[in-house]
Amino acid sequence: MLKPQSYAAGHWIAPGDTATTVIGPVDGQPVALAGGSDLDMQAMLDHARNTGGPALRAMTFHERAKMLKALAAYLDGRKEELYAINPATGATRRDGGIDIEGGIGTMFLFASKGRREMPDGHVYIDGEIEQLSRKGTFLGQHIAVPLQGVAVHINAFNFPVWGMLEKLAPTLLAGVPAIVKPATQTSYLTEACFRMMIESGLLPEGAVQLIVGRTGDLLDRLGAQDVVSFTGSADTANMLRSNPNLLRNSTRFLAEQDSLNAAILGPDADPDSPEFAQFIKEAVTEITAKAGQKCTAMRRLIVPQAQMENVAKALSDKLENIVLGDPSAKETRMGALASLDQKADVLARLEALAAETRLICGGPDALTDNLSNGAFLPPTLLACDDPDTATAVHAVEAFGPVSTLMPYRDLAHAAQLANRGGGSLVSSLFTNDPQVARDVTLAAAAWHGRLYIMNRTAAAEATGHGSPLPHMVHGGPGRAGGGEELGGIRGVMHYMQRTAIQGSPDILTAITSTWIKGSAEITGPQHPFQRTFTEIEIGETLHTGSRTVTLDDIEHFAHFTGDTFYAHMDEDAAKANPFFPGRVAHGYLLLSFAAGLFVQPDPGPVLANTGLNGLSFQKPVSPGDAIKVRLTCKRKTRRTDSYGEVAWNVTLTNQDDDQVAEYELLTMVSYDR
Amino acid sequence: MLKPQSYAAGHWIAPGDTATTVIGPVDGQPVALAGGSDLDMQAMLDHARNTGGPALRAMTFHERAKMLKALAAYLDGRKEELYAINPATGATRRDGGIDIEGGIGTMFLFASKGRREMPDGHVYIDGEIEQLSRKGTFLGQHIAVPLQGVAVHINAFNFPVWGMLEKLAPTLLAGVPAIVKPATQTSYLTEACFRMMIESGLLPEGAVQLIVGRTGDLLDRLGAQDVVSFTGSADTANMLRSNPNLLRNSTRFLAEQDSLNAAILGPDADPDSPEFAQFIKEAVTEITAKAGQKCTAMRRLIVPQAQMENVAKALSDKLENIVLGDPSAKETRMGALASLDQKADVLARLEALAAETRLICGGPDALTDNLSNGAFLPPTLLACDDPDTATAVHAVEAFGPVSTLMPYRDLAHAAQLANRGGGSLVSSLFTNDPQVARDVTLAAAAWHGRLYIMNRTAAAEATGHGSPLPHMVHGGPGRAGGGEELGGIRGVMHYMQRTAIQGSPDILTAITSTWIKGSAEITGPQHPFQRTFTEIEIGETLHTGSRTVTLDDIEHFAHFTGDTFYAHMDEDAAKANPFFPGRVAHGYLLLSFAAGLFVQPDPGPVLANTGLNGLSFQKPVSPGDAIKVRLTCKRKTRRTDSYGEVAWNVTLTNQDDDQVAEYELLTMVSYDR
Repeated sequence: MLKPQSYAAGHWIAPGDTATTVIGPVDGQPVALAGGSDLDMQAMLDHARNTGGPALRAMTFHERAKMLKALAAYLDGRKEELYAINPATGATRRDGGIDIEGGIGTMFLFASKGRREMPDGHVYIDGEIEQLSRKGTFLGQHIAVPLQGVAVHINAFNFPVWGMLEKLAPTLLAGVPAIVKPATQTSYLTEACFRMMIESGLLPEGAVQLIVGRTGDLLDRLGAQDVVSFTGSADTANMLRSNPNLLRNSTRFLAEQDSLNAAILGPDADPDSPEFAQFIKEAVTEITAKAGQKCTAMRRLIVPQAQMENVAKALSDKLENIVLGDPSAKETRMGALASLDQKADVLARLEALAAETRLICGGPDALTDNLSNGAFLPPTLLACDDPDTATAVHAVEAFGPVSTLMPYRDLAHAAQLANRGGGSLVSSLFTNDPQVARDVTLAAAAWHGRLYIMNRTAAAEATGHGSPLPHMVHGGPGRAGGGEELGGIRGVMHYMQRTAIQGSPDILTAITSTWIKGSAEITGPQHPFQRTFTEIEIGETLHTGSRTVTLDDIEHFAHFTGDTFYAHMDEDAAKANPFFPGRVAHGYLLLSFAAGLFVQPDPGPVLANTGLNGLSFQKPVSPGDAIKVRLTCKRKTRRTDSYGEVAWNVTLTNQDDDQVAEYELLTMVSYDR
Repeated sequence: MLKPQSYAAGHWIAPGDTATTVIGPVDGQPVALAGGSDLDMQAMLDHARNTGGPALRAMTFHERAKMLKALAAYLDGRKEELYAINPATGATRRDGGIDIEGGIGTMFLFASKGRREMPDGHVYIDGEIEQLSRKGTFLGQHIAVPLQGVAVHINAFNFPVWGMLEKLAPTLLAGVPAIVKPATQTSYLTEACFRMMIESGLLPEGAVQLIVGRTGDLLDRLGAQDVVSFTGSADTANMLRSNPNLLRNSTRFLAEQDSLNAAILGPDADPDSPEFAQFIKEAVTEITAKAGQKCTAMRRLIVPQAQMENVAKALSDKLENIVLGDPSAKETRMGALASLDQKADVLARLEALAAETRLICGGPDALTDNLSNGAFLPPTLLACDDPDTATAVHAVEAFGPVSTLMPYRDLAHAAQLANRGGGSLVSSLFTNDPQVARDVTLAAAAWHGRLYIMNRTAAAEATGHGSPLPHMVHGGPGRAGGGEELGGIRGVMHYMQRTAIQGSPDILTAITSTWIKGSAEITGPQHPFQRTFTEIEIGETLHTGSRTVTLDDIEHFAHFTGDTFYAHMDEDAAKANPFFPGRVAHGYLLLSFAAGLFVQPDPGPVLANTGLNGLSFQKPVSPGDAIKVRLTCKRKTRRTDSYGEVAWNVTLTNQDDDQVAEYELLTMVSYDR
């Protein structure tokens, strides 16, 4: 018997006197004793807020990203221990892979995005500088900083590992401590993974805590800097988000709710098309993977009226051959529902759907006797022939291996039916016609958090309708909860406060560690290209001498490069161009001369020019004009132990000090000598 | 007597039998009869959803932006009519300027941002392509599309014009119809402005409706695609957001609540400093403008212990000289509160603060007899000497010309006091020390939606602590409501759904009207630079011949431009560089040769290369390598009647088809011939 423990304020707490006995879904025997201990919720919050939060906030985004990478690698090294426990939840090894390796992969992805897309500092920059004043002495910049509270993660029973890790990764990257509350039914698997994180020693004390069992009055103790992130049923979400304390404090509440996700077979996808085959393949996966217990599973299959029979036949042929049974057995293709209670719930929903549907295949009566002790249910396909008058098929979710087929008349009708779910996490469309994809997107995207559009090109590498990816937003409007998580850095922002900063350039530079035009320039002790990453200071500036651009230069450059565009070569034609006063220098000639002016030719720490951003040519340069360059260190980002990227703000001005071009120059620089 | 009308489902509805008599705050006489008519809420929602929404969604972002610009110009032309009504609300002309011209200016700004930062299409692109697969056949892109419901705007009494326009501008730009519900007390001024919008004929039918009076069961009829945006008190916000129907449907609810905004005087700001003077000046403005009835006004003045007396004296000297009286009189510096009820409310709050504070100046007893019939209250400064044990000063808001002075020991203490407001719309800091600015930001930004940091540099052009600007986010955590509005396009996103799209490159190109690498290339009938903006198609591609880069070319370019960086000139030194195999071509040489390869020299519709984005040098080019170019039309954005911007995706590949560089080239192109 497993006895998962809570981890509260630095202590492991065993199940208490009133612990719940968790019944295994495969054979109806007890598998675990969980919860029932008296946890001091205020002590847990204090521990997170006073110990975990400050420790995490002291780290930079990159330090937290590296911590996540190390943690993911550590868990990856011990994943077989988790696979060993996984069948007790009713899940096959394949199901377990989605849960365990999906969770670890999500943590790796956030580690990687954190280093690539966030600064190695404490302040995240959101968007561009806003020019709030004419002379530029008063500017605006949005930033984001970690919330100073705690994240409470309330997870569903179906993904005990992924559910924890996909919420923890963005939370910890943001710099916010978390209290994880798994569903009791599968809490022993969550606890096993959580215990590994503690044993890794990679997380600061107070960064993560675990509640196995009830949360007591935890939500009544949350405030303005806390976040509740919930995954589960619409009913539970509604109960939680109605908590008066959360409402009064405007506490952030993110919900991903099971929804009536749709899959549309495109009008172009006839039975011989690759899209038809892919639709059948993915529908079978969605109905059977994790025994259909995925909040993203296809609940409604919306197909052209003419294809109803073809689809019903193709699907039932495959579903009837799915091997149901012991999830640890090799031949098993589909395991059990997570609990006997869960099965009872699914059967009740099937009854609610009965009046509007007919059974195509599966159903409880198709279950073989040898599986009757467990929470098994064969893959079940229903058909609803009149989806316009039907209401239950768009609202009642049987959270198991159940899906309903329904016909549509035209594309607008298909989108309308998909939208009748009242908001979904994901809906999909199988079409090879880009115009169909665009039409359905414009008609339906507002109702769905994710649209998965599948055709023959994408099929080979596609990750599946039901797989939330850490890069992409997971969540949806209305019935799906109105929340969002994942989506790369978007998911991190849910645990940060976006603040509008207004002030002078120097003030904004100090706050963002990014040189802003108008800030003080620093003159270094030598040419900046002779300085290491460590030595170069934000604001360090080089002013070059000037160089006159002659007509000969322009002619010469044109013939050398082959760029004999008339604006450089023909005075009359150039004058006829609305943007030029006559023949002008090539933009690339200016860039090249600028490099000639600012480059220091000798070997030194600045190793290479790797790129350039936001180049804008602002004023034509005519023969006889003289240009000079200002080059200022704008931003430094360490990339490896040996190198860092230094971004320079570069402006070119002419003899009248009018700016003619501006860009951001990227260089790779040695970290030290 | 004014009789503001509602505008429901295309009809003007006069005040009904149970209309409220609005009492003027200046002389206690009736000024208007408002509300009391039976409005059919479902008919209004149907009108918005079925008529206004589709009409707005049929327009592109640019078309809606142009509509906003025309509307703002129209209102600007008739603004004196609004100024004429303004004094009845108790507001001076200067107060009215914030309201009327502030509102019109906000609409102009959204019109401008809509054209500069959004596409001239129906799909907004949110962020970069996500590489979800190795070969690139399955990609991700976040987009945003308009919600298909209605925005319900519930506005506060203090800014009857700005309150309406600052919410309408982003809503209409998003493509969502709105129902505006102003506070009854000042609804006649809102109605006057609303009526102008209808009279302008610039908005499609159903785009805007107006409810003067009660909203009845409107909120009980909202769903997953609707948004409630509220400005007002914390109590009202809490009541509204607790509506079970809104909670059950995850209906978006945005709140800006009056908050206990703080202003911190920096430790460096001694009485002789410009920052001290600016602090006093802005505090006086915040206490007196709009008689202190601004949700952003400074409620708590947090100053160094040693400066308590200096600040108290400097402030009371100025506050005691504020001329109170008839808002339409020229000499009046501060008008009345918005109503006698409002004054009673402020007096009750002053009593709640009395136990923790002492009166420095003002208070109801300082009122002169001639103003006793109106809702007047002199500017009132309190002091709280022990802000650590005090609770009311951090929680009770007297929504009038009232502020409380309190001392801090050190910077951490100052931030801690500011944060004790429990979340604010804005707090400010007066300092000329960038390190102080950074420290306070890291300690406090998580609790404040906006930080206004003022020093001698920014003072000349600063817009003031209390002014929400349309560029910057307005809203704050916790006590401030947890909402966000404005902030440029961020504010538009509240009325749109962000959806993650997954699919093949061609599918994503069709949906986003932006060519994505891997999508089909189109060969045009002639060189793309000879094609007009109208003619050029997304995906139109030019493949050039190749050019060998010789060592002579490199030598020549180096001496011509002056860029004799060793990696181009010295084989041994280049080899020692970790990124180069030996001498390599200059990046700018490659760019220049690329232009030589793809430019068509003759006059034609493509007029100029205006810039370049995201240039990345990916592989060194050695002498003897041959480069060729692919140039593909990625994106088209019309800029004026005559010109449009065409962005091209450009890749340079070598003789082995390895990509050596990639960038986005920007050109200005004639709209037609």
